Amino acid sequence: MPRFFVAASNVLGGIAYIDGKDAEHLKVLRIRSGEVFTVCDGKGRDYVCRLKSAGADGAEAEILETLPSAGEPSIFCTVYAAFPKAEKAEAIVQKAVELGASKIVFFPSLRCVSRPDEASALKKCQRWRKISEEAAKQSGRGIIPDVLVNLSFEKTIAEASKAGLPLFFYEAETDYALKEALESREGYSSVSVVTGSEGGFETSEVGLARAQGMLITSMGKRILRCETAPICALSALMLHTGNL
Amino acid sequence: MPRFFVAASNVLGGIAYIDGKDAEHLKVLRIRSGEVFTVCDGKGRDYVCRLKSAGADGAEAEILETLPSAGEPSIFCTVYAAFPKAEKAEAIVQKAVELGASKIVFFPSLRCVSRPDEASALKKCQRWRKISEEAAKQSGRGIIPDVLVNLSFEKTIAEASKAGLPLFFYEAETDYALKEALESREGYSSVSVVTGSEGGFETSEVGLARAQGMLITSMGKRILRCETAPICALSALMLHTGNL
Repeated sequence: MPRFFVAASNVLGGIAYIDGKDAEHLKVLRIRSGEVFTVCDGKGRDYVCRLKSAGADGAEAEILETLPSAGEPSIFCTVYAAFPKAEKAEAIVQKAVELGASKIVFFPSLRCVSRPDEASALKKCQRWRKISEEAAKQSGRGIIPDVLVNLSFEKTIAEASKAGLPLFFYEAETDYALKEALESREGYSSVSVVTGSEGGFETSEVGLARAQGMLITSMGKRILRCETAPICALSALMLHTGNL
Repeated sequence: MPRFFVAASNVLGGIAYIDGKDAEHLKVLRIRSGEVFTVCDGKGRDYVCRLKSAGADGAEAEILETLPSAGEPSIFCTVYAAFPKAEKAEAIVQKAVELGASKIVFFPSLRCVSRPDEASALKKCQRWRKISEEAAKQSGRGIIPDVLVNLSFEKTIAEASKAGLPLFFYEAETDYALKEALESREGYSSVSVVTGSEGGFETSEVGLARAQGMLITSMGKRILRCETAPICALSALMLHTGNL
């Protein structure tokens, strides 16, 4: 069923108002009066709607049923990825949203080849947010996960370490397995997944993460590419928490 | 440590002989006499080697230590992916090898947009095998997973269904979760992961797979892209079987 996101304020009195690009998309899909589709308020609520009318300004749809968005996992996972090269960042956003990440943050680390300045990072963020929106629609998410840039490694780790399960993946860690980390705590509702760039992390960065209470974790005995690591961690996490 | 694959017949009397493109790669990496690197026989054995000499014909390295390849998972998983569009097939091969797949098979299904004929499929296979080799080196695998094309859906399913855990992922399956499937049997050493193309599977195809004894399985409540699904399944499988 086609899926549209609208602002929560566009849902009023049993009617969902669809405007802007989504109204155009409705036309492209040739959805006609009487046809049924899903409108999501981006806050985890889905509305099964029937199109009433569509005009130049937008479209009105009657709400038939209100449901919690089925596509939302039971945990809030933030992916923190050290800046990779451009197309890899896009792949991370797209796949992480499909797999149920709730937020994606890019940050600098010592071995990053790509180190955008603030202006360039903000510009990239715009593009990443569009990719997140597209992936959220395609995969049936109930929110559009936000994509942010944090230009301080220290602040990134300080934030990431606050999650119920704060995972920091380090390619040279061989003892502490992901499975062990996932089973080390119970009842967590928030998870951080911190992964490195092409060059991995420096030991000083690992030390800082450890000092902040992050769990320095291995992702198995195969060296994963920087765009594969968050995807693998998310998939494993979703399995472990009953979301797969 | 740099990693090279050689034929098992190139390992003889405590010496590993490196020839062809790998000998060139050794030069590119400027590895000199006395330096240490890993040679893998592609059959799950790693040799820690010290370079003795390198000439126009190839290089000779003294074997210091023989070890089982640490990068091999404890299970043999074959990924069967319905033909996707070109760049997606490449992503599937690369990521599946990183994540521990032992074999990758592409096959046609009714809704495939891309349906190569035999000549074209064989040509693509050559390219996919190169990608597999590169990914095996990069990720530290002990084998180079083979990439094959099977031009019959029926034969593909007949083969896939023989695994100890034969998983057929169907986007319209909502009841039978991946977690349940992974826990439904014990002690399996071989796994099949069958995933669809962009358009998913027809119910007739699902029926055939079910009749052959495959487990029709859901990959959660989010719709995954065809290149994400095998990656997600492999990651979950590796977690479940103690390989992550």
